[in-house]
Amino acid sequence: MNQDIKLGIIGLGYVGLPLAVAFGKVRDVVGYDVNQERISELQKGIDKTNEIDNKILDNTSVKFTNDEKSLDNCNFFIVTVPTPIDDNCNPDLSYLESASRLVGRHIKINSIIVYESTVYPGATEEICVPILEEISGLKFNDDFFVGYSPERINPGDKVHTLDKLVKVVSGSNKKTTNVINDLYKEIIHAGIHVAESIKVAEAAKVIENTQRDLNIALINELSLIFKKMDIDTYSVLDAAKTKWNFLDFRPGLVGGHCIGVDPYYLTFKAQQLKYKPEIILAGRKLNDSMAKNVSSFFIEALNKNDIDVTKSRILILGLTFKENCPDLRNSKVFDIVKELINNDINVDIYEPNVSMEDKIDLLGAMLNNNPQQNTYDGIILAVAHDEFSKLDPNEIVSWCKEKRVIYDLKNALPSFAKDISL
Amino acid sequence: MNQDIKLGIIGLGYVGLPLAVAFGKVRDVVGYDVNQERISELQKGIDKTNEIDNKILDNTSVKFTNDEKSLDNCNFFIVTVPTPIDDNCNPDLSYLESASRLVGRHIKINSIIVYESTVYPGATEEICVPILEEISGLKFNDDFFVGYSPERINPGDKVHTLDKLVKVVSGSNKKTTNVINDLYKEIIHAGIHVAESIKVAEAAKVIENTQRDLNIALINELSLIFKKMDIDTYSVLDAAKTKWNFLDFRPGLVGGHCIGVDPYYLTFKAQQLKYKPEIILAGRKLNDSMAKNVSSFFIEALNKNDIDVTKSRILILGLTFKENCPDLRNSKVFDIVKELINNDINVDIYEPNVSMEDKIDLLGAMLNNNPQQNTYDGIILAVAHDEFSKLDPNEIVSWCKEKRVIYDLKNALPSFAKDISL
Repeated sequence: MNQDIKLGIIGLGYVGLPLAVAFGKVRDVVGYDVNQERISELQKGIDKTNEIDNKILDNTSVKFTNDEKSLDNCNFFIVTVPTPIDDNCNPDLSYLESASRLVGRHIKINSIIVYESTVYPGATEEICVPILEEISGLKFNDDFFVGYSPERINPGDKVHTLDKLVKVVSGSNKKTTNVINDLYKEIIHAGIHVAESIKVAEAAKVIENTQRDLNIALINELSLIFKKMDIDTYSVLDAAKTKWNFLDFRPGLVGGHCIGVDPYYLTFKAQQLKYKPEIILAGRKLNDSMAKNVSSFFIEALNKNDIDVTKSRILILGLTFKENCPDLRNSKVFDIVKELINNDINVDIYEPNVSMEDKIDLLGAMLNNNPQQNTYDGIILAVAHDEFSKLDPNEIVSWCKEKRVIYDLKNALPSFAKDISL
Repeated sequence: MNQDIKLGIIGLGYVGLPLAVAFGKVRDVVGYDVNQERISELQKGIDKTNEIDNKILDNTSVKFTNDEKSLDNCNFFIVTVPTPIDDNCNPDLSYLESASRLVGRHIKINSIIVYESTVYPGATEEICVPILEEISGLKFNDDFFVGYSPERINPGDKVHTLDKLVKVVSGSNKKTTNVINDLYKEIIHAGIHVAESIKVAEAAKVIENTQRDLNIALINELSLIFKKMDIDTYSVLDAAKTKWNFLDFRPGLVGGHCIGVDPYYLTFKAQQLKYKPEIILAGRKLNDSMAKNVSSFFIEALNKNDIDVTKSRILILGLTFKENCPDLRNSKVFDIVKELINNDINVDIYEPNVSMEDKIDLLGAMLNNNPQQNTYDGIILAVAHDEFSKLDPNEIVSWCKEKRVIYDLKNALPSFAKDISL
């Protein structure tokens, strides 16, 4: 183990916290986050993202701080800040830039900075390195060195955890790559793949979620076609997946901080280079429109059932962007809520991972984690939380009035308990 | 075993022949094909598609015939004729229609007709059934019954063979479905999946290849983007596929009778129903343009290397639509040949599965299965036949003059033996 390395991790969210805790088991780590509330919670052993157990957090040696002076003694920085998109679906690199400025104030001769945030190929060297040079006054690849190692955290997934996944690493020269490789080896037991360049490592990450996004988009497109043909999509998928190489994707909303976002980083850069990525963009467009489609189909079904839409009261099951996880980032269920409320529908939301104290803007909807019988004209099952599958479907049905539309987006309910599905 | 069934199979190509031979092991089968030459060959034990061994063919009990009178005693028909596309990429149902007319002349009370050809959802009942009714004068679902069971033959694949694949079956009513199910059980040992309707079974088939087509299209799009970024696509894929759920597709030409064709059946029907399937069509468009892209990149590289394009002599390795298979149907290598010849390039083709006797229209190119040293300005490795990987890469290089461009479309050559790759 290289004792000369003094590790600082910048950003303690879904990615940074598990990384800091893993390194904390084998060496000293400074864990820095700008968010003071987050730091206070972590110091108390509370991880609101649910990635790290209370007990583990209580016993970690990581020094959680939002005082940047704590980074003074660090010479190896790992940056794990968010890389979201703005309202026009263009990359928002502001967190990455401010993290680079922060690190720039603390690097010294021979420091190494590794980025884990998802970016487009080239971003580390084109965006981050110039900031590091400017702020530090040091010269890239002479005085300091960089690397890129894409995060592969799958929020809520307790199987594919950090140490069990192969980690891709890359560095700005061979020696740096070796140092980075050796460092990650301390915590990664599934093996490390050394990419031949930073750009290759950046590209590898961004295409993973692009592929997933497009595959879901295809199934969404198929479900829209099959709707017009009066064919049940899930029956078709059940038949198709009996073929050895059919890929078992499901229709649905694509939200969250990764799958619906990362492709835009790639398409942004491609279009800058005068290539129009029509396939990826067609997939994005459709996935982004699914909440609207769902709302229209639902309202159509209400009308068909002689339910007065503007007086109707609807319950949505699930608000997070995926099942069994409290993550609300970029959840497309909000888009459904917005559409329904725009149609003067009264919307309640049953989301066991959220409480009134969280003070979440529900866009006019109400949180109701204790629905009562005979209350609703319709239900949309939007997220397949385990809590919902543990419920007796009869109970879910009992929350509805006699005339009802239950819309099962996740194929989670038995046929007697649903009226339409995606 | 239902001894009342007298089986006739219509169409003895890649799909019908293995099916006939499999049934021939357990019961009497009439194997009918309109192509007299094909029938004569089969009677002599020769299968030009290479799906069935000479020895097996010699010993089969199947009665190969192109005399439709032989179908007089049949009461169960399986139709396995091609369903290609026309020049406008619209479904060409003429084979299916003429097979239906043929069968219509031979069905009797309680006959069952099962279609295996890939079609769009609805085609069996909308296109075939009316023809059967008209020609036979019998009434559908009273006098005769139909079913659909999609073929899953993978040409050249000796692992995923008929009896080892789950078969999807469906029928026009419950009793028919059971009869069809029992019949296929005689030869399918991997299990049978009963689809809930004919439309569901049709849909399941057409989406399998649509999914594959789109996934290859995505990788092609990525390879075009990465070319602009000067990133090696295969290095990126090697890194990405270290993630547990990354799907290992490769860039390339999409030809053949299935993957590049089936999606157009679905998009045709979708557009008839006023839905524009933008994702599927974007994928098709790109895959159909890849031969043109490949030709342009190659000519660009010749120019860069100061090779006089119009006097150049180029060798293409492989002409079939996939490796280790003699199938030339819809091979996109022909499109590359066309592009190169349009640029006044002299093109030779090395295709071990083809001989001069086959009298194939090479569009002005020459077959040369014995290339000589120091002859070519460039080589395009287009199909990764085992014959080529068995060659010493130095030998391939030796066929070129000193100034050369070797373009490896299949990532099949070591780096010293290639100059550009897809």
